[in-house]
Amino acid sequence: MKNKYFTVDEQQLLEEVMRLRRDVRGNNFTQQDITAEVIEKILMAASLAPSVGFSQPWEFVVIREQATKQRIAHSFAIENKKSEKLFSDDKQQMYAQLKLEGILETPVNIAVFYKQSTKPVLGQTTMKEMGEYSVVCAIQNMWLMSRALNVGLGWVSILDPEAVKKILHAPPQHKLVAYLCIGYVNEFLEQPELENLDWEKRKSIKSVVYRDRYPNEGQ
Amino acid sequence: MKNKYFTVDEQQLLEEVMRLRRDVRGNNFTQQDITAEVIEKILMAASLAPSVGFSQPWEFVVIREQATKQRIAHSFAIENKKSEKLFSDDKQQMYAQLKLEGILETPVNIAVFYKQSTKPVLGQTTMKEMGEYSVVCAIQNMWLMSRALNVGLGWVSILDPEAVKKILHAPPQHKLVAYLCIGYVNEFLEQPELENLDWEKRKSIKSVVYRDRYPNEGQ
Repeated sequence: MKNKYFTVDEQQLLEEVMRLRRDVRGNNFTQQDITAEVIEKILMAASLAPSVGFSQPWEFVVIREQATKQRIAHSFAIENKKSEKLFSDDKQQMYAQLKLEGILETPVNIAVFYKQSTKPVLGQTTMKEMGEYSVVCAIQNMWLMSRALNVGLGWVSILDPEAVKKILHAPPQHKLVAYLCIGYVNEFLEQPELENLDWEKRKSIKSVVYRDRYPNEGQ
Repeated sequence: MKNKYFTVDEQQLLEEVMRLRRDVRGNNFTQQDITAEVIEKILMAASLAPSVGFSQPWEFVVIREQATKQRIAHSFAIENKKSEKLFSDDKQQMYAQLKLEGILETPVNIAVFYKQSTKPVLGQTTMKEMGEYSVVCAIQNMWLMSRALNVGLGWVSILDPEAVKKILHAPPQHKLVAYLCIGYVNEFLEQPELENLDWEKRKSIKSVVYRDRYPNEGQ
């Protein structure tokens, strides 16, 4: 092969970044500011993501303005209150104690949008979700790059996308895919918080892999 | 910070994996087989992805059986013929010459499914797509890990998800998110093929980033 050949050590380093990446919430962020240079590196990682038909259908709103963050945090509070009620009694109590976002605790928030193409996109003709999926690939690149830069990132999904779009003056046809909170941290937890709390158990890989087809289903 | 602190060299290595990752199509794959151990490393990377509410809503069907691949390839051929017609005349000609998948050329195909939870998922209460998005994060981890293992991966999206589900006997409520072709390669292209062919131009990062909000829209 005439290309760059990655060594076992390099492959293991990638695995380590993946293993140590965390979804960081409010109580683990510090107040330290983040330079524009670091944010640029994270956005560069996004731009290196695969995209269906090389459509690069992503747009980013980098928010540092406190008043804007406050309006988003307000929207989160409304949705979070509603969401809490959907869980069973024992989980509701735990839910109420969780700090699920770091909107105001982080120097930078990034809203990530999917911008739909007006013409057909190669590869998106039968599976319409491929555009959004490309945006998610970009977000996962941002997440891994943040960890390699020793920066925490949290994905806030307990938001009303239409409310966020209004706050950010987003074009009506754009779709909010993610709202990210980015800042330095006191620590990266050893394990996901919800695993620590036994909210959900870790699945073994074996339990989610099938060989050639599903057994005895859908026939 | 008490955790692993990544160095600049390590961060640059991650950037290199991202930069050299390619969507590999049929004509760049070799016939070389892939061991179960390598496939396990790729699936391990998937399992290290973030997931909404730690729900890990992914399932994988690892396909080595030639007869199954042939049925999938047949479904691709049907959809690809339909898709081609959607493009403008000049692009149709180029489209017809592109080799857009490596279903039969690769030793391993992996179909990736989203398995919907039957109970509420933390973080998926207002944005219902978060489950699928978690699966896409896992796929991007697989893609990067494949490149670090010097293995090519191509994402085939020109498929009828219902046809693929039928071929693989997937439970009706499962959703096909991706169909991946995995194998060793002759080369990883320097640039995405569609960039080389000028099918689409690369966007500058500056052109897709806004500060604090979109200007003058949606007000």
